[in-house]
Amino acid sequence: MALIVQKYGGTSVGSLELINQVAEKVKASYNQGHQLVVVVSAMSGETNRLLGMAGELSPHHSRRETDVLLSTGEQVTASLLAMALHHHHCPAYSFCGWQIPIRTDNVHGKARIEEIDTNALKERLAQGRVCVVAGFQGLAGDGSVTTLGRGGSDTTAVALAAALQAQECRIYTDVDGVYTADPRIVGEARRMDRVTFEEMLELASLGSRVLQIRSVEFAGKYRVPLRVLSAHGDPDDSGTLVTYEDENEMEQAIISGIASSRNEAKLSILHVPDKSGIAASILTPIAEENIEVDMIVQNISEDGTTNFTFTVQKPDATRAAEVLKQVAKEIGSKKVLCDTNIAKVSAVGIGMKSHAGVASTMFAALSNENINIQMITTSEIRISVVVEEKYYELATRTLHRAFGLDKAE
Amino acid sequence: MALIVQKYGGTSVGSLELINQVAEKVKASYNQGHQLVVVVSAMSGETNRLLGMAGELSPHHSRRETDVLLSTGEQVTASLLAMALHHHHCPAYSFCGWQIPIRTDNVHGKARIEEIDTNALKERLAQGRVCVVAGFQGLAGDGSVTTLGRGGSDTTAVALAAALQAQECRIYTDVDGVYTADPRIVGEARRMDRVTFEEMLELASLGSRVLQIRSVEFAGKYRVPLRVLSAHGDPDDSGTLVTYEDENEMEQAIISGIASSRNEAKLSILHVPDKSGIAASILTPIAEENIEVDMIVQNISEDGTTNFTFTVQKPDATRAAEVLKQVAKEIGSKKVLCDTNIAKVSAVGIGMKSHAGVASTMFAALSNENINIQMITTSEIRISVVVEEKYYELATRTLHRAFGLDKAE
Repeated sequence: MALIVQKYGGTSVGSLELINQVAEKVKASYNQGHQLVVVVSAMSGETNRLLGMAGELSPHHSRRETDVLLSTGEQVTASLLAMALHHHHCPAYSFCGWQIPIRTDNVHGKARIEEIDTNALKERLAQGRVCVVAGFQGLAGDGSVTTLGRGGSDTTAVALAAALQAQECRIYTDVDGVYTADPRIVGEARRMDRVTFEEMLELASLGSRVLQIRSVEFAGKYRVPLRVLSAHGDPDDSGTLVTYEDENEMEQAIISGIASSRNEAKLSILHVPDKSGIAASILTPIAEENIEVDMIVQNISEDGTTNFTFTVQKPDATRAAEVLKQVAKEIGSKKVLCDTNIAKVSAVGIGMKSHAGVASTMFAALSNENINIQMITTSEIRISVVVEEKYYELATRTLHRAFGLDKAE
Repeated sequence: MALIVQKYGGTSVGSLELINQVAEKVKASYNQGHQLVVVVSAMSGETNRLLGMAGELSPHHSRRETDVLLSTGEQVTASLLAMALHHHHCPAYSFCGWQIPIRTDNVHGKARIEEIDTNALKERLAQGRVCVVAGFQGLAGDGSVTTLGRGGSDTTAVALAAALQAQECRIYTDVDGVYTADPRIVGEARRMDRVTFEEMLELASLGSRVLQIRSVEFAGKYRVPLRVLSAHGDPDDSGTLVTYEDENEMEQAIISGIASSRNEAKLSILHVPDKSGIAASILTPIAEENIEVDMIVQNISEDGTTNFTFTVQKPDATRAAEVLKQVAKEIGSKKVLCDTNIAKVSAVGIGMKSHAGVASTMFAALSNENINIQMITTSEIRISVVVEEKYYELATRTLHRAFGLDKAE
């Protein structure tokens, strides 16, 4: 008998019929003798419906109250799935974040989990019940409801798996695993049976829609065995397993996958006086607004001034540009640019650590297609480039072919 | 500066535009310097929408999970109203039942309030904030969400007014006060400026839609000054004030109002052996199912057997009939009848205590219109009759005229 955490996303519970199908799937696992904690998202479309109401009432709605509003989405799904399980004669018991409780900091809209009390869950599991948990939500120190940010239900699932020392955390989604590239862009993309944690972390941070990055970080920190599977596909399919490198003795492919995203925007602040502390004076006000920065590039100095460029998530672009205009005034810069017409394409592979030439292969392939590179950043196992948005698909396909990912393993 | 509890029902917050109007109304009270606790219901239609989903998933859905589901309705309204208040530059802070907390017993769907901790509310009031409270919900001893039953937001408002020793509890609704009869049935019905608590209690128990009976009981127990007003009508209108008899030295009208309801069903169990303890053996299983019984009539015995009749709320009728069939087997009765085709019409008046002849006026008036009376019950200040449902309007108008309520005070 194993303790397993399952997570079903919004599209997997997007209608009453789908909730019923999830209940049947959960029941089947329960009948195999597993102890189950099932984390659910809001029904697809519900979060946007609620945000739409908030937006109509007030353009700048309170973040605390937005969390109160949004958390109802997952609460509804949790109670409905518990009812569907009862209907299938499977004992179930729903939990909101505050009932467990999942304690977080008080950063509304992007709260971080600080502590999980597992006693209430363990008590219900010991009674033979399936615990159905409303994902995405927690409880701040002042008793307010918090939410963990978009995709936060993944984080809830992984954090619960870590806290409960679950045998496996299974993320059921509308894709059946992790691919070498987005199959909607690259016809030859292949599903990977295994992906290393480091690769998954890069893929998640690059906007691969499969897993939220914080959930992968959490999984890595606590070494939670994580598996990505299809919610409504073949029940015997084992999806993609996220592994930890030292468990993996086979030789690694140089590049495992190409990740693409057009969900970022590029911000530049020009003619910044080139003195020490300037990066901090630009990025601190951005961080204080809880805007996450991804790529950062600072060009070499000309005439004692420099240009500073970074990317943020598109929905944060307008707010970031406002902050930046304020900063520009303070530090004597004359110009702020905001470009949402970009795409980021990245090559990721744990094998990159020990191989040279990846960057040159990448840049040559893009150059052959006359794709101009606007920004470059690298990590130990990743190279990312920013290109004009219109090259989103072409750049992805080009790199997938350049690294031989279209050929069978 | 007074502490005032306001309550807005589902139709008063039934759209974003109406929520905005409520926000303006609350803001106006706030600007007058009052400390405000505002209790809200779910947006009209929302509770039924949620129940519809539950019903589709499972005909006999868990009551605990139903409470988790339904409580989201009020939570959504509370957060939206708080946002609308912020938009009008009125500091507001929302509370769910569990956040206050409003502690209840664990009878899901019909929970009773046991204790209210007012510290969290008082702290926010002291900060100059309007506390927006999700009505209808509480927290059971085991940490589960409970709901107080339909119309439970009234009870939340009155209970908070009592606990906070508020100067007044104002129930804003889609009618502008308490009438001598339902104005949709009786064109000549007049709005009362004042109604005694006892009369209000009878009117509420008789299905007058203005206030939930438990809220009136609560108000009486703690002598909460209670006022019924129009949510979106003339802001200077003072509605109907519920008074406590000893404050009221004027001579009372014999009959203050006629209440009508067609929300009850009549159940009979026939040929019951006429021995002691039989009423208890019939009603105890009904009570155990948390079905509330209203009128009870036991006819005189014939041939050593008797007939036992009582009324319940229509939505409980099928369940009550099932229980009763089981009871019939056990006590040797051959027949159970369930009649949903009834209406209850009642004459209510605190003056009845000291006047004779009310019953005869009532029965004569109905007889003149050839309306057959099926059941009669009385209290100190009320006479109720059950008639066939088709006489619902006619009986109401007849009694309104018979007691001279159509004439100016």
